[in-house]
Amino acid sequence: MALDPAGPDRAGRAPTAGIVATGSELLAGRVHDANGPWIAERLGELGIDVAHILLVGDRPDEMESALRYLAGSGVDLVVTSGGLGPTADDLTAAVVADVTGRPLELDEHMEKVVGDIIARFADRLRWDAAALAEANRKQAMVPHGATAIRPVGTAPGLAVPRGSDGFAPTVLVLPGPPREVRGMWDDALASEPLRALLERTAPFDETHLRLFGVPESEIAATLRAVGEHTDLAPLEITTCLRDFTLEVDLRRRPDDGAARAAHDAVVAEIEGRHGRAVFSRTGQTIDEILFGLLEGRTIATAESCTGGLLAGRLTAPAGASAHVQGGIVSYSNEAKEHLLGVPDELIAAHGAVSPEAAHAMAGGALERFGVDVAVAISGVAGPGGGTAEKPVGYVCFSVRTADGREIARDPVLPGDRGDVRERSVVLAMHLVRRILTEG
Amino acid sequence: MALDPAGPDRAGRAPTAGIVATGSELLAGRVHDANGPWIAERLGELGIDVAHILLVGDRPDEMESALRYLAGSGVDLVVTSGGLGPTADDLTAAVVADVTGRPLELDEHMEKVVGDIIARFADRLRWDAAALAEANRKQAMVPHGATAIRPVGTAPGLAVPRGSDGFAPTVLVLPGPPREVRGMWDDALASEPLRALLERTAPFDETHLRLFGVPESEIAATLRAVGEHTDLAPLEITTCLRDFTLEVDLRRRPDDGAARAAHDAVVAEIEGRHGRAVFSRTGQTIDEILFGLLEGRTIATAESCTGGLLAGRLTAPAGASAHVQGGIVSYSNEAKEHLLGVPDELIAAHGAVSPEAAHAMAGGALERFGVDVAVAISGVAGPGGGTAEKPVGYVCFSVRTADGREIARDPVLPGDRGDVRERSVVLAMHLVRRILTEG
Repeated sequence: MALDPAGPDRAGRAPTAGIVATGSELLAGRVHDANGPWIAERLGELGIDVAHILLVGDRPDEMESALRYLAGSGVDLVVTSGGLGPTADDLTAAVVADVTGRPLELDEHMEKVVGDIIARFADRLRWDAAALAEANRKQAMVPHGATAIRPVGTAPGLAVPRGSDGFAPTVLVLPGPPREVRGMWDDALASEPLRALLERTAPFDETHLRLFGVPESEIAATLRAVGEHTDLAPLEITTCLRDFTLEVDLRRRPDDGAARAAHDAVVAEIEGRHGRAVFSRTGQTIDEILFGLLEGRTIATAESCTGGLLAGRLTAPAGASAHVQGGIVSYSNEAKEHLLGVPDELIAAHGAVSPEAAHAMAGGALERFGVDVAVAISGVAGPGGGTAEKPVGYVCFSVRTADGREIARDPVLPGDRGDVRERSVVLAMHLVRRILTEG
Repeated sequence: MALDPAGPDRAGRAPTAGIVATGSELLAGRVHDANGPWIAERLGELGIDVAHILLVGDRPDEMESALRYLAGSGVDLVVTSGGLGPTADDLTAAVVADVTGRPLELDEHMEKVVGDIIARFADRLRWDAAALAEANRKQAMVPHGATAIRPVGTAPGLAVPRGSDGFAPTVLVLPGPPREVRGMWDDALASEPLRALLERTAPFDETHLRLFGVPESEIAATLRAVGEHTDLAPLEITTCLRDFTLEVDLRRRPDDGAARAAHDAVVAEIEGRHGRAVFSRTGQTIDEILFGLLEGRTIATAESCTGGLLAGRLTAPAGASAHVQGGIVSYSNEAKEHLLGVPDELIAAHGAVSPEAAHAMAGGALERFGVDVAVAISGVAGPGGGTAEKPVGYVCFSVRTADGREIARDPVLPGDRGDVRERSVVLAMHLVRRILTEG
């Protein structure tokens, strides 16, 4: 892809893209580039393969060398983000004009649009009138033949049509702030230069499986097994462990019969071997699934080692107040006794981290909040506090319902303190899902 | 920097670096590259400027073209991450050997080290003996003259000395998993090729100011004001809004007098204009500061709209159980009454989101947990539930101490539901800091 000698005109080849994000803060490492991955994901959905993402500083020669590198690698589309602001450092438009051989021209309509926007920001920017007029004019300069895209912040985007020998790719120039990139995206796709490119593509067909409780190595073994009897090459398979959930994404060209066969074989083998672990076939998250299952029911939490993270996560979606009544973070033993009614003697006999304590905590939450379902978590998050019998990572879960059912677990979870806490939250959500789908 | 014609040998110039991360999942956009920013930050601390970060797919020609591009741009160091695994797709070592003109040779010591490690993984990988032996040998192949770096996972890293005309930069080859990159870093820096490079650098002098409650535009205005009387060019200034905190980082070459003067002028102006907002001069986070202030004291929370996120954050550090007693997530009005003793009539008269309710919630937490400090948060996180009088973002805070002091606030916070919740947590932590430093 990168060095395809046939260039962008080869018939039947899907378009490819490169992305350049500019900004010295990206190279200092403290700020992560949010635009590159977002743009890559959007382009992927449209059927455009991203071959390179480059992060460069804000000097014009750095942007220029990145653009020439991408054009030399044969991509059909270059998307830039950043360097479009009103200050003198913001030079992307000028560099793109130079590299594509299209002189900058004033777009009078855009000058007026930008002027109205800048006027609203003028007080905050504390600039004088001359500086404002200059910034205004700078942002309304458009490479000859390019389309300006209406600003979301203060800077218009630019869509530059594909060129010829010197610099062939179509170029889409976007601002740096992620909110502006997202807000401008649909208009950018509707511009003439992008429409011309998109006519040559068809969106991928995608399948998004989500599994909980299966290690990545198991899926690798499953895929190898499928590969022994089916050619998987036409199918793009991405596996990714995120939020302690294994995400398996299958992507294929819609008109490719071999890809379809590979897809069906992979899905059948995963369902056959790991069907119980597959909790989503649409990419829905556990949070979304749980939100749906809780409709018409109430829930409360009793948390020790997770310290409120489960309640925080259950209340994240808008509308959570319809089912979440509340929770108790019983970090100390006194709180477990006084606020959840866990008997002193029970803790003395079994310890605060025990299946018995978790059972009693869930019972206390059921009763005190008067809910349909209660979840309790008590564990050793570490790094201290572990014993031979109850090592760091030992976490006890109890999920109980008002009608007397219970699911209890007490695994030893791997990872550091943060991992143990986050993983406990996700596991607890899956236990709630299970009790609600069984009940 | 990118196109410096003087090349890497120019006397007195600080070394520059480029980073290449490989893996098709990075180009699909679903996985963010964690290694590039982390490596960039570490190199920056050592006095090495990062000029480019590239993300490429896992085809050998993509890695090769990235390496050649970076060498052509004149960097002194190239760091790669990814593509070092045992499978046939993992080709970074072979490409680096090829590009640097150093044939791969078997490192027998490393073959044994890797063999021992792979044996432990063998069951999980489900590979046969022949595949294991092949993977083992592949991972022990080292470019001629390069140093192998002891694996953290299964793959050794490689440090390749600088070369001559064809490909000049020193190359450091690291694995993909962030945990392995971090675990291998110190050994990598201690390798002969890296030590030779680091002899030419001196770490930057850095100052890390942290401000809360000042918009980024105010700091921009302050920096412009300093710039009117002092040349700021020799000072590298990065401002970044993260976790609702304004981070101002100043970085300079230790032996540069003009940079020192610029640094002192910037610090003096920020302290003069925004002194009250500066809560850290060492880069310490609010979490770390609060943890220190809470030593010998106890704390509890009463949360409504934040749903347990404040308790979750206070219990994140190891050792939190010494001061966090617990918290109550009183999401429903019933929970506010029954678990925190907020009178029915108070909610009827003032509403559950009111300074009065927050005051009573903090009082309930003080009493029920028997702590020195209690924090209460009740607000309208949105998107629904806002009124003209109490719009979305209206949040009431009360921080009370056992000795009868209180800090109360009821701002309207900007942003969406997630922002309002997260911002409330950070604001609450600052209010606790204030009451603990005053008391």
